[in-house]
Amino acid sequence: MTAPSSEEYRLLAEDLRRFTREVFQALGVSAEHAAIMADSLVQAELRGQGSHGVSRLLDIYVKRLQSGAMNPCPNVHIAAQRGGTALVDGDNGPGQVVGHYAMGVAVRLAEEHGVSFVAVRHSSHYGAAAFFLHQAVEAGMIGFTTTNAPPNMPPWGGRKPYLGTNPLALAVPSGSYGPILLDMATSVVAKGKILLMAKEGRKTIPPGWALDADGNPTTDVQAALSGMMLPVGGHKGYGLALMVEILSALLSGADFGPHLGALYGDFHRGQNVGHSFGALDVSAFGPKEAFLERMDTLVAEIKAIPRQAGVEEILMPGELERRCQARYEVEGIPFEAPVYQEICRIGEGLGVAPPATMAP
Amino acid sequence: MTAPSSEEYRLLAEDLRRFTREVFQALGVSAEHAAIMADSLVQAELRGQGSHGVSRLLDIYVKRLQSGAMNPCPNVHIAAQRGGTALVDGDNGPGQVVGHYAMGVAVRLAEEHGVSFVAVRHSSHYGAAAFFLHQAVEAGMIGFTTTNAPPNMPPWGGRKPYLGTNPLALAVPSGSYGPILLDMATSVVAKGKILLMAKEGRKTIPPGWALDADGNPTTDVQAALSGMMLPVGGHKGYGLALMVEILSALLSGADFGPHLGALYGDFHRGQNVGHSFGALDVSAFGPKEAFLERMDTLVAEIKAIPRQAGVEEILMPGELERRCQARYEVEGIPFEAPVYQEICRIGEGLGVAPPATMAP
Repeated sequence: MTAPSSEEYRLLAEDLRRFTREVFQALGVSAEHAAIMADSLVQAELRGQGSHGVSRLLDIYVKRLQSGAMNPCPNVHIAAQRGGTALVDGDNGPGQVVGHYAMGVAVRLAEEHGVSFVAVRHSSHYGAAAFFLHQAVEAGMIGFTTTNAPPNMPPWGGRKPYLGTNPLALAVPSGSYGPILLDMATSVVAKGKILLMAKEGRKTIPPGWALDADGNPTTDVQAALSGMMLPVGGHKGYGLALMVEILSALLSGADFGPHLGALYGDFHRGQNVGHSFGALDVSAFGPKEAFLERMDTLVAEIKAIPRQAGVEEILMPGELERRCQARYEVEGIPFEAPVYQEICRIGEGLGVAPPATMAP
Repeated sequence: MTAPSSEEYRLLAEDLRRFTREVFQALGVSAEHAAIMADSLVQAELRGQGSHGVSRLLDIYVKRLQSGAMNPCPNVHIAAQRGGTALVDGDNGPGQVVGHYAMGVAVRLAEEHGVSFVAVRHSSHYGAAAFFLHQAVEAGMIGFTTTNAPPNMPPWGGRKPYLGTNPLALAVPSGSYGPILLDMATSVVAKGKILLMAKEGRKTIPPGWALDADGNPTTDVQAALSGMMLPVGGHKGYGLALMVEILSALLSGADFGPHLGALYGDFHRGQNVGHSFGALDVSAFGPKEAFLERMDTLVAEIKAIPRQAGVEEILMPGELERRCQARYEVEGIPFEAPVYQEICRIGEGLGVAPPATMAP
């Protein structure tokens, strides 16, 4: 298949998955682990979140594996376990591999105890939080996850970053509608979104998103990237980000705040990111079918609410991403030319054939 | 003690507690349950949150108990239990009584299983979420609670309310600093705040807080009260409020959305509010002392962050409320004259001596 002449390429998810898996395998990651990493990065692309997909993360994950900053063959293991809780040590492995293991533990513990909470240390950037939630909802459970991240956000009133844009994510199964999935950064927007805007050549961001490096409000993409993000809803987002930091890193003994290793730097050390994962068995509180029916009623009633002018439809959290995935699975995943060329170059250096593009 | 001539009274917490307890006892509530209700309402006043205290809630709780809409002698009980989870039925009792029982169950279950989750149905308005968290942190645990509430907020893009301003609250113990306590409505502000502003005679609210009854933005207090609140951070606050609704009411089988009984109305029926309570034993993940030390490091580092111009101090969530409590415990709780007179009238009708005021 030859590349189309337009500035946008369309990649088939399946072949992008093959490409991504082979890149990681070429760096010493096992087939099983490379498949998990590829699933996460391609799922994010399918959901329209390139900021958590191949387009942003392949390059930096490769660099971290090549430099030895991230362990390609981690011994991910349970370091402590009591009742419905566990402490998982990621042995400095890729965050997707560590998180997939930890959520698996969370689901098994919730099967036995009805509820579980797994704290994780010695992990790395774990990509899209949503990825892990599917493991829980497929087991008929409510799933929960948080992660800390290198400092990009000041405490409310501060002018130096301390907290990451610490996401929290929660998914709930329903009946005919399917899972409802909330995956939100506790900043107004995720920094990855601004990084991707920069990569696409955009110059400005809306006011209220970020401060510059001196702590002044800015609408300049570059000033924002060298500055810091603002928490959503002011002190409320600060409070949520702080709680995410505590649940992810203070509980598990991972690094927190400025002690965390950078994703784009600190190649001499692991990041020591912390995560949390929880699962809750809805059948512990009554028949599962009755719960799923109530969920479908909730969704139907919310969708029937009269809309504000200019609003076409009331959406559930995660609905846009799910629709995007359904479309991109058929139409292919759009990649800007420079981004496609960059990932091809990465593959070339490792002897991996580029992902096929679809005819324009 | 005679009333001061100023328009503000200062009440001693202890005597306000005695007064509130006696009011509820006069309506058939047991001494034990009345003490819990009084503790919650007076603690909210001490923390500077009259919107969740005696000044707003005594009147309506009395009306609901007198009309039979709320059960003064509930048989609060565990309806189902499995591992670290339980379903609690509140038997239409006061929310504070039901919540105090349910958080007690959550703490006991977390002692055994490391983590717990308790879903509650057939409850009522439970006042300040923060009240219940103290039970968890005093047991050395992270505490969590949510509640749904009568519809006051549209789904994002809607112009009719469906969700309550559904609060979520989380508290974490630390070492020398003391507990960090986040208690936030998922609206920009709690509706109780606007109700209290109206009671104090204020006319306007800042833009962005509310829509009027037709779904248009408003800054008028009365239009906002007959309209609806807006979610914090737009679609993010909507997502959080929806998840709170699910955790509180869909899991437990309580009423949700518009099916919930009103607090100010529906005197022929119970509200059937739903709550959730969770506890997490920090010692499940390693030595408790090491965790508390890490927490103190976190607090010290955040407080040392350079501040924006005009900011005197970086605060932790719940810090202002804690300081307010320390001050009001000494200086007394300030009550505007009309609010003080109203609660005295309620006591008079039930043969309860008014709360003593301090000399001005």
